[in-house]
Amino acid sequence: MFAGFQPKLSATSREARLVFLGNIQPDLQRDVRAQVPRAELVALDTMNLWIDNTRESLQKTIQVVDLLVVNDAEARQIAEEANLIKAARKILSWGPKTIIVKRGEYGAAMFTKDGYFAIPAYPLESVFDPTGAGDTFAGGLMGYLASQPTLDEAALRRAMIFGSVMASFNVEEFGTERVQRLTHQEINQRFSDFKRFTNFEEIPFDRAMRAV
Amino acid sequence: MFAGFQPKLSATSREARLVFLGNIQPDLQRDVRAQVPRAELVALDTMNLWIDNTRESLQKTIQVVDLLVVNDAEARQIAEEANLIKAARKILSWGPKTIIVKRGEYGAAMFTKDGYFAIPAYPLESVFDPTGAGDTFAGGLMGYLASQPTLDEAALRRAMIFGSVMASFNVEEFGTERVQRLTHQEINQRFSDFKRFTNFEEIPFDRAMRAV
Repeated sequence: MFAGFQPKLSATSREARLVFLGNIQPDLQRDVRAQVPRAELVALDTMNLWIDNTRESLQKTIQVVDLLVVNDAEARQIAEEANLIKAARKILSWGPKTIIVKRGEYGAAMFTKDGYFAIPAYPLESVFDPTGAGDTFAGGLMGYLASQPTLDEAALRRAMIFGSVMASFNVEEFGTERVQRLTHQEINQRFSDFKRFTNFEEIPFDRAMRAV
Repeated sequence: MFAGFQPKLSATSREARLVFLGNIQPDLQRDVRAQVPRAELVALDTMNLWIDNTRESLQKTIQVVDLLVVNDAEARQIAEEANLIKAARKILSWGPKTIIVKRGEYGAAMFTKDGYFAIPAYPLESVFDPTGAGDTFAGGLMGYLASQPTLDEAALRRAMIFGSVMASFNVEEFGTERVQRLTHQEINQRFSDFKRFTNFEEIPFDRAMRAV
């Protein structure tokens, strides 16, 4: 089926600091992954087709990446586990340090060995064309990470917001129309909006005690 | 159908600062609402039965309350609008200052005339009995508000977290078993967890500009 397709990375690509393994057959993804042994972060996308038909190979590929980026249903299906938290924990046990789960209009969640982070989606009054929202999210995520000197938890959190912001623009118009004329200022504005609509005040312990 | 049931509030109840109109026929809810003219905040619950069968009366009741607490599907059904943001905006135009939308495992969202706030759900590895999660959310929300001197946006945001925390405990065991032995410390712990797993760093404008 894929006999004719054997990706060979250029010398420059082999030195990439960040690699996103797009949604292709997991044997091929693993083959590409082997060509970037010095990458600081290798992320992986997949889909139901590979989960159904090439489960064993996919699991091997998941074992050799740092970050899995999938949607809700895919995470449950990969782990064969209905509860998302349990599903994420199971997949993490195979090797990746981080799983980011896209939840469409409900936002996104990130799971690490000891951590959890979740954001709502950017609130949109109309979604014109949801095609490519997941890919735009991944693009925004990886693009932001590429701009960061350190790929720590804080950078990953901010990257998720950037991914969500980019996806929120993408679905507003047909295809790539909206994203093509996007300005930095518009992106930064929505990032700030995220801060505003997810922020709440810490309650000092004693005040909380009295409160309840 | 409700001929025999005409709630008459006691003199003390008529002076309540906060009132939660539980899920009964909307004419009766409005009748109770009229008995608490000095209440600082009147909240309203409802369900598909009343939305389907007593839409006009329900809309009148929504017009005279401050806060509507419903789930995703109910909000869309009340407004006859598939997009939740548009649905919330429509309902707000009828009168209430605030709508809080419960989204189960996806958290909760709050809509006001100029604001939006959203939180994920507390991440649970097993949900033993989801019965009463929505009511526990409302109870935690109202209980927290009752402890606060000022019912502003910040208090409402914290109240949503308290509601979510209470609901997260409620579903862990059968009926009220878990909630009955709950300690203040456990509640405060999960409130702090919320802060930890929703918090992300602000990016200074110029740094964000460079980032993208």
